[in-house]
Amino acid sequence: MRTEPAAVRPPMRDALVTAAFQLFLERGYEQTTVDDIVALAGVGRRSFFRYFPSKEDVVFPDHERCLADMTAFLAASGEDDEPVQRVCDAARLVLRMYAENPAFSVQRYRLTKRVPGLRAYELSVVWRYERALAEYLRERFAGRRDGILRADVIAAAVVAAHNNALRSWLRSDGRDDAEAAVDHALGCVRSAFGTAAPQRIAGAAEDVVVVVARRDAPLWRVVKEIESQLGRN
Amino acid sequence: MRTEPAAVRPPMRDALVTAAFQLFLERGYEQTTVDDIVALAGVGRRSFFRYFPSKEDVVFPDHERCLADMTAFLAASGEDDEPVQRVCDAARLVLRMYAENPAFSVQRYRLTKRVPGLRAYELSVVWRYERALAEYLRERFAGRRDGILRADVIAAAVVAAHNNALRSWLRSDGRDDAEAAVDHALGCVRSAFGTAAPQRIAGAAEDVVVVVARRDAPLWRVVKEIESQLGRN
Repeated sequence: MRTEPAAVRPPMRDALVTAAFQLFLERGYEQTTVDDIVALAGVGRRSFFRYFPSKEDVVFPDHERCLADMTAFLAASGEDDEPVQRVCDAARLVLRMYAENPAFSVQRYRLTKRVPGLRAYELSVVWRYERALAEYLRERFAGRRDGILRADVIAAAVVAAHNNALRSWLRSDGRDDAEAAVDHALGCVRSAFGTAAPQRIAGAAEDVVVVVARRDAPLWRVVKEIESQLGRN
Repeated sequence: MRTEPAAVRPPMRDALVTAAFQLFLERGYEQTTVDDIVALAGVGRRSFFRYFPSKEDVVFPDHERCLADMTAFLAASGEDDEPVQRVCDAARLVLRMYAENPAFSVQRYRLTKRVPGLRAYELSVVWRYERALAEYLRERFAGRRDGILRADVIAAAVVAAHNNALRSWLRSDGRDDAEAAVDHALGCVRSAFGTAAPQRIAGAAEDVVVVVARRDAPLWRVVKEIESQLGRN
């Protein structure tokens, strides 16, 4: 999925990110200039702007790659891919980017919380992810009643669930299991909008199974019930 | 609901908004300075900043009032108010603000589409509405399993549905029925998350789990869904 594996990422780019974060943490984000960053990294201003359009971009150095990965992943979808499942999988790419480098992600999370300009930048990045997911869903739902509306709502719900899991993980200082948290969060969206959505219940009696269980029922008993309902043993 | 009816809104504030929009449309947003605006309105710079912290704020003069209205509306909720219905009604306040002045809203929509800085500003406003809805839901869902997650996801879905309807209305140049569009859009969210949601079907929401699955779903997938619904992994 990655267009530019970490191993071959330009070392100068990494050096700029490292220098920038060292200064942001020491002096504060607002008090650090691009000149300070390039001086510490030992490169010229033009090198900085070759990699980053602005100071804000150095705070989020991997989002452009991740957005490109997400777009490519969605473009590679087939007709057989269940659309809601597919956008959930696309959202997981973002979490994976954060989880690749927990210490950096946690550091940035703390920085972003303190600097309003960075929060605004982050909102615009989140918006671009949401639009990528919505565009894919709009295409898949084309011709369906309320296709565009459903696409927009599901994309927003997926992003909100993903970000809920991501924030929990960041607040655990990257210690919790990020994948498990996001699986659980996206599961909530899928149960509201996915193949099990209420609009399939009516009229599709033949190929749908409904199982009701008490929450404290032992799992083996629930599974047994499911098996018999599905007609498999 | 309105804290400051149009009739008693300070005329100087209205004059500044009118002057600003005249200049934004004639010269472009970026090319217009606060000095240009106050000169046309015939007031001093200090008067401008008494009403608006920045040039961006004059583009969205009613959002602060609307946010305050929304917060007050949610704070006035009772225990009997169905939470998803309540946040849908809160979102309607935003649409009503736009619909109060269709010509101005359509003009601003076109302006915002052209100016990236204003789009970023708008995202931050939308984010504040979403947080207000999510905070209310978090409180109402306190103690419930996945309460915070559900609150965040539903707030995002409500905002996305509202904005979908709002954009359709703006693209119709304010001619369509805004209320009908937003009712329909919010109806989709309510059918996914509201009283009709699967976990409420059995009536005893707290200790009963309902799982709906396609008959041809692989068993492992059904079991996984059961596990997540039971809260065990």
